[in-house]
Amino acid sequence: MRLAPDAIDRILARWPVARMATLDAAGRAELVPVVFALCDGALWTPIDGKPKRGTELSRVRNLRRDPRVALLFDHYDDDWDRLWWLRVDGRGEVVPARGPAAERALAALRAKYPRYASGATAVSSGEPTLIRIAVERRLGWAARADLAIC
Amino acid sequence: MRLAPDAIDRILARWPVARMATLDAAGRAELVPVVFALCDGALWTPIDGKPKRGTELSRVRNLRRDPRVALLFDHYDDDWDRLWWLRVDGRGEVVPARGPAAERALAALRAKYPRYASGATAVSSGEPTLIRIAVERRLGWAARADLAIC
Repeated sequence: MRLAPDAIDRILARWPVARMATLDAAGRAELVPVVFALCDGALWTPIDGKPKRGTELSRVRNLRRDPRVALLFDHYDDDWDRLWWLRVDGRGEVVPARGPAAERALAALRAKYPRYASGATAVSSGEPTLIRIAVERRLGWAARADLAIC
Repeated sequence: MRLAPDAIDRILARWPVARMATLDAAGRAELVPVVFALCDGALWTPIDGKPKRGTELSRVRNLRRDPRVALLFDHYDDDWDRLWWLRVDGRGEVVPARGPAAERALAALRAKYPRYASGATAVSSGEPTLIRIAVERRLGWAARADLAIC
């Protein structure tokens, strides 16, 4: 059944990981797991955030060419009555990690991920960059109506 | 660092869930979590397998229009030193769940997922259908060389 809007809000605020698709030059989906934070109504994911490596450049190249982004948030469980997923379509923009909006997003990332807060991993290194994703469409499904999500 | 071929083989043989992207009529990535089994060198995912609902028709429509499929296998962990991911690009084909090759794939799905073996969930209902994905490219990354994967 469809996920209720408040369940979708909770997932976007709290879930630790999303799988993100951008589109390469040939129009193929390029998938990567990303960490993210919800801030000012948009989803923000750091270029230098984990999980990553080896694909950050193609991700950025892809977005400059075609801003369409798809994100999947889901929980897999051997008990299939506990499954749910949420799909978000959006438009991604590569933005420098400076200025008030980016500072708020960086603070949200540090608050959500202890590894950033501790300084063990820099949110951004080198030329600091973020991807800001404007949410266009949200569609979620759950195996059961009474499922506790997040 | 790059995942070694034997680690990739283990993930494809054992990991319980993949996130799959097909391409819709507008060329947008459409993401859904899928269960799958490796059989005869290809990846097989049932249309009626969990997690699903609501998207099986669009998935099938997408593949008939454009066979390009991207799959992501990954493990998220709060300890970022334990992260890894594997991306597979392939070509998907919608095939009826009958005949010797499909029977072997259905047996592999039942062997991998207790829910199918127990009969609690039919691997396929209605017009039985499978998606067969021919693997074209595998690319994997792990945070550490000594990571135990699967």
